[in-house]
Amino acid sequence: MKLKYAIIGTGALGGFYGGKLAKAGHSVEFLLNSDYEYVKEKGLRIDSVLGDFHLPDISAFRQTEEMSLADVVFVCLKTTQNHLLKKLLPPILHENTLIILLQNGLGVEADVAKEFPNQMVAGGVAFICSQKVGAGHITHLDLGKIIMGMHQGDRGSVLKQICENFISSGIDAEMTADLDLIRWRKLVWNIPFNGTTVVMNTTTNSLILDEATRPLIYSLMNEVVCAANACGVALNEEFARKMIDMTEAMMPYEPSMKIDFDLRREMEIFYIYTRPIELAAAAGYDMIRVRMLEQELRFMQKNLSNDKG
Amino acid sequence: MKLKYAIIGTGALGGFYGGKLAKAGHSVEFLLNSDYEYVKEKGLRIDSVLGDFHLPDISAFRQTEEMSLADVVFVCLKTTQNHLLKKLLPPILHENTLIILLQNGLGVEADVAKEFPNQMVAGGVAFICSQKVGAGHITHLDLGKIIMGMHQGDRGSVLKQICENFISSGIDAEMTADLDLIRWRKLVWNIPFNGTTVVMNTTTNSLILDEATRPLIYSLMNEVVCAANACGVALNEEFARKMIDMTEAMMPYEPSMKIDFDLRREMEIFYIYTRPIELAAAAGYDMIRVRMLEQELRFMQKNLSNDKG
Repeated sequence: MKLKYAIIGTGALGGFYGGKLAKAGHSVEFLLNSDYEYVKEKGLRIDSVLGDFHLPDISAFRQTEEMSLADVVFVCLKTTQNHLLKKLLPPILHENTLIILLQNGLGVEADVAKEFPNQMVAGGVAFICSQKVGAGHITHLDLGKIIMGMHQGDRGSVLKQICENFISSGIDAEMTADLDLIRWRKLVWNIPFNGTTVVMNTTTNSLILDEATRPLIYSLMNEVVCAANACGVALNEEFARKMIDMTEAMMPYEPSMKIDFDLRREMEIFYIYTRPIELAAAAGYDMIRVRMLEQELRFMQKNLSNDKG
Repeated sequence: MKLKYAIIGTGALGGFYGGKLAKAGHSVEFLLNSDYEYVKEKGLRIDSVLGDFHLPDISAFRQTEEMSLADVVFVCLKTTQNHLLKKLLPPILHENTLIILLQNGLGVEADVAKEFPNQMVAGGVAFICSQKVGAGHITHLDLGKIIMGMHQGDRGSVLKQICENFISSGIDAEMTADLDLIRWRKLVWNIPFNGTTVVMNTTTNSLILDEATRPLIYSLMNEVVCAANACGVALNEEFARKMIDMTEAMMPYEPSMKIDFDLRREMEIFYIYTRPIELAAAAGYDMIRVRMLEQELRFMQKNLSNDKG
């Protein structure tokens, strides 16, 4: 049986992964918002290190009410939009639809699972450098692997099929039995770099090369490692060191939160910072520096919002 | 015996306190740098909540070599200039000259005492809102008390006379036997607000009123209290709470470090942050948040310097 895919949020992630599936011939419907008119007329363009391509005629929609029922729904919105899911998702869900949250942070699956208690819910973590650079135009700069794991319901067989679909579409994909581990691993990078590039108004590279912020980044990473451990997730300092080395080898990079802030969009503070801090605290570990970073970010977010309005 | 005063650095502090002494008829010589020509011609103007005044003809100098030997030398430079003292001070010192460091932070007296091992050295802490607003032009907005204590040598009797001179000149002045306590008390305010107003690009008031940064400020204050305790200085949480209340009652205020940063001058990171962090660490206490703030400030300072050229 061929799976019918729905992509909720056709940005850097949704546009890329959905585009790759569509290009390989899979049935994919895309939900768009501001880019709808443009994409409906001109299609989706993806400039990728794996090869550029153009999808002139994708199944683009402005409302989920107009979309088909889907077997697999990839939620690729920013987590700051998750309050919309309650209205967005029901029109495309059938009994066995699997909702996969391809989002940042920790705890998104738990919240969506609570909202949709009878639905299968999975999480996906994308290790990719991609950006939406214009309407219907995505650039894929580096990496691309996606790791998925179940959170609610036992539909591992569907997840396996999705993995196979990705792999045959040219995407490195993998299943995990330990989604928490994958999410915490990504936080080891996301927590220090997203916030600190915003607060210091700089790139990953400058932070890593500076003699004051390099140890700060390392301390923040270690707090994430300790928090993961407190939550029963096995990570170690060695992994933090690897993340430092990996970042040093990367091109100067602006994490998604930095891009959001510069574009005056709401930052994903809650799921990237607040939730991990709360979960660690409940497990007895105080993320002192990460909390300080979160407080700085909240101040900046609020003052940005004030400026706006 | 009347004391001969020298003011090294005629800015917001030196100009005000020296000006008050000179106005009351004391012998005061002023060292100036960029404002020398202007002040030589036009004198020193002080707009003070205690009453405005103008000193048309002060003893202004550009080099200490041209100045008289002084009984009391008030060092009112930014601590970032303290490397100059080795050259600046000797021409005006006699055997019994008392050097008083009217500066921010912790450990300035120890460093200057090491540089001048045979000289009396004291420290002074000014509780004042004053600013240099133009050449030879100082505004005094609020407060004004000065507290002084000996660090090296026993010249308490001279300190007493200085206090009397201040008081008869209209300045609230006091001696302390515990200079460390006074310096740590001031750090309880200076450490959170100086750095955080720079990193968040804001005023004391906005930080105090924000629900994210108010607890952050309080946490930073408590780290200073704990660090003081570790160093054998008696302070408690109640004092931190008082500082919060006091700041809330103040007008929105930009601390000296914020002004320095905005004017692209070097910030006093070393004596306000690094020294207290080091002293606390040596006493077994890790100022985690304060160190993070210091690291952020060092990054900002360095990038400011890089921008400069």
